[in-house]
Amino acid sequence: MKRRDFFKNGLLTTAGISILGARPILANPSQYRGEKAKNIIFLVSDGMSAGTLNMADILMRHKLGKTSNWISLYESNTVRRSLMDTASANSFVTDSAAAGSAWGGGHRVNNGALNIGPEGKLNEPILQKFKAEGKAVGCVTSVQITHATPASFCVNQSSRNAMPLIAEDYLKLKFDVMMGGGREFFDPSKRSDGRNLFSEFSEKGFHVVNNKEEMLLASGSKPVLGVFSEDGLPYAVDRENDPELKKNIPSLAEMTKKGIELLNKNNKGFVLQVEGGKVDWAAHGNDASAILYDQIDFDEAVGVAMDFALKDKNTLVIITTDHGNANPGIFNPGPKNIKFESLFESKASNQWLLSQVKTDTSVSQIIDMVNHYLNVALDKEEGSQLLKSFTLGDNGLYNTANLPVETFGKILSKHNAVSWANTNHSADFVELAAYGPGSEELPGFVKNYELHNFMLEVAGVSRAKFA
Amino acid sequence: MKRRDFFKNGLLTTAGISILGARPILANPSQYRGEKAKNIIFLVSDGMSAGTLNMADILMRHKLGKTSNWISLYESNTVRRSLMDTASANSFVTDSAAAGSAWGGGHRVNNGALNIGPEGKLNEPILQKFKAEGKAVGCVTSVQITHATPASFCVNQSSRNAMPLIAEDYLKLKFDVMMGGGREFFDPSKRSDGRNLFSEFSEKGFHVVNNKEEMLLASGSKPVLGVFSEDGLPYAVDRENDPELKKNIPSLAEMTKKGIELLNKNNKGFVLQVEGGKVDWAAHGNDASAILYDQIDFDEAVGVAMDFALKDKNTLVIITTDHGNANPGIFNPGPKNIKFESLFESKASNQWLLSQVKTDTSVSQIIDMVNHYLNVALDKEEGSQLLKSFTLGDNGLYNTANLPVETFGKILSKHNAVSWANTNHSADFVELAAYGPGSEELPGFVKNYELHNFMLEVAGVSRAKFA
Repeated sequence: MKRRDFFKNGLLTTAGISILGARPILANPSQYRGEKAKNIIFLVSDGMSAGTLNMADILMRHKLGKTSNWISLYESNTVRRSLMDTASANSFVTDSAAAGSAWGGGHRVNNGALNIGPEGKLNEPILQKFKAEGKAVGCVTSVQITHATPASFCVNQSSRNAMPLIAEDYLKLKFDVMMGGGREFFDPSKRSDGRNLFSEFSEKGFHVVNNKEEMLLASGSKPVLGVFSEDGLPYAVDRENDPELKKNIPSLAEMTKKGIELLNKNNKGFVLQVEGGKVDWAAHGNDASAILYDQIDFDEAVGVAMDFALKDKNTLVIITTDHGNANPGIFNPGPKNIKFESLFESKASNQWLLSQVKTDTSVSQIIDMVNHYLNVALDKEEGSQLLKSFTLGDNGLYNTANLPVETFGKILSKHNAVSWANTNHSADFVELAAYGPGSEELPGFVKNYELHNFMLEVAGVSRAKFA
Repeated sequence: MKRRDFFKNGLLTTAGISILGARPILANPSQYRGEKAKNIIFLVSDGMSAGTLNMADILMRHKLGKTSNWISLYESNTVRRSLMDTASANSFVTDSAAAGSAWGGGHRVNNGALNIGPEGKLNEPILQKFKAEGKAVGCVTSVQITHATPASFCVNQSSRNAMPLIAEDYLKLKFDVMMGGGREFFDPSKRSDGRNLFSEFSEKGFHVVNNKEEMLLASGSKPVLGVFSEDGLPYAVDRENDPELKKNIPSLAEMTKKGIELLNKNNKGFVLQVEGGKVDWAAHGNDASAILYDQIDFDEAVGVAMDFALKDKNTLVIITTDHGNANPGIFNPGPKNIKFESLFESKASNQWLLSQVKTDTSVSQIIDMVNHYLNVALDKEEGSQLLKSFTLGDNGLYNTANLPVETFGKILSKHNAVSWANTNHSADFVELAAYGPGSEELPGFVKNYELHNFMLEVAGVSRAKFA
């Protein structure tokens, strides 16, 4: 039983070592002699496992008769594809703070940290570097603007949970466009220090916008802070099915379009991060209805970014995710895929539906609700099981009300054919697509932190200045 | 609530439609003007979800200090990457027969069928086409040589279950190298018709080999049939930990190496299919120990194929899977990834371990067995739960003894950090890598059936002859 001999036939890594050669990713600024990128748009579908991308594309093709923008880019050979290793400094499985910090600061950090290394080293965030070079910079997201992914491009904080402090950091940084949710971190009635950050942002020269209409009217003469909801924005499927929400809350594509319009007024170019943050929340909640329509919402932002970049010709677009989450897929879809097709008619997220259940809701009422909003016919036993599971509740991220999201996800799996491996992040390597100047230089496999220097170098910003 | 307006912002598919253009995949033989491929090696890790590839690479990097051959090919930009849609004619989720038939016959068929369309049309299998052109052809696999994936390149059968008939088809076809498991379909004591196919193959001019030593001595003056076990070959982790099995049963890399050596004697070139078939079985069984080491076993065959192709320079290599299965991943790996690292010391598959449990096995004995073979310390409650689950048993593919594989997989998830979304195939788009003549022509997204003509055209074989 000589296990040490087991794998000695690895020819490529022994005899064939020479074919591996040096990594073709840009090692230093002088190496990159191609056209420089004036602008960068970095799009993150947070917590997107391979199955999430695939299911959304299948839904779009069969419900809407068109391919997703992301997969279209592969089909048409418009982008360079790469596979990305997302590990953090202390785990194969990263959180969003560490994953974003790898891109944002160029170094892996421990889970939970924002651009502060395991030994306390502060890594200068990439949007600060670009701002110092005269570029306009910003972030738009479907979760709190102070949340881990946007924060990872902007600030240094030892904990991602310090969202009230991150809001204060944003005040000091005075970046050009910052839009998403998270009102509680700006609102004097919610902040423990009672500060009115909205007033402070206005006083500092920001244009503060609170809803879609105000956002669309912003002219760009001032930096823009847009905060559209208390915490994360509603799921896309809930927004689209509620006229009030649809009127007031912009989609990710709408924020992206406005963000590009505002940032592009700067003649030295811009860098914009776009995050579909609730894809991750839906994965944590094993919420098929939510994840599919939020992935499609993200995909529309991809369309907006690519539409700009294809015309502009000076914009590097990177489309990726920070880590897998829950590894969902379509399994046992039934004759003519009828189970999965139930999701074509979803009118709500699982999360929203569960939030509507009262202490006196009956089994037949919950069955009716599921039928109406999710196009799924639960039997009495399932209805009863679901109702009982409220007593226990499920824990888990972004489930502050302890709604039985995991139980509901499991019950629905048998009906909508979507099942989930977990309610947490995975160590999977993830999909990355790149378009524009420099993209042809990306190797087929990258580590997340390598993208930091790659972006600086492709934009002609020497990182040596900031070492 | 105008859902019809929901996705009207899909710019790439409306305003930007022109960038999509015509599919660059080869539409007809005259289109391909590049160097022709003399040989093709088509490698299939059956039922490999994205997470399977990734977990095996992570295990190799951290246990063995080297990157998998497959990921190395990405890192070094040696191959063209594509994403493949694996659907069958009647489902988003294919089985191996329909998936293999898409490649093998150029048309999607219903699940379960081998190159016979929904209306009964027979699609000529690709190895018959290549054989007619004078190429040497063959298949090697870690499951029965009569199993769906090799059969899909060779025969027409309305059901993949007709393995005794598929063995007879192979006798008539007289292909050059056919090696794997499945003795029962050749053995007169097991066949219901009592035919001794081993004798018939010998009489027809085959060299029949029954173990690794005989295989290694085969000279190639005759076609070779190699059958090394009753059904599928043992899992790699079980073979490597049993000196008798290791002596008698070749690894997939050893069969691949011998197959190439034999087929390459033909001066008009060859086409070889290589299947890591038990990756799929391990996924059906939610068996982390089995799937990781069988994926690595497959990866060694990738190394063998690439080593040949890099020297030969006239060989198209395609490395892919036919569909996802179970979508496993690493979740919650614990401090320093200690849970996942328990798998570095696996000495058996879960399946093998469960097969050793007797009616009088005690809780402490099963705890000891799991500790010894899987490097995992179950607590008494888990040991008791596992023992009790034998009474019920789990159903599922390739689990004829109804061993509690799914229950065991779930119990082990908490210890080895590998969890699973299902015990069946997924609709996920899958990874594909291509090297050699023609590979640069592959678009970033393909449908499985498109590979059929692609292979014929790259090899300079006009499909028109066979239409």
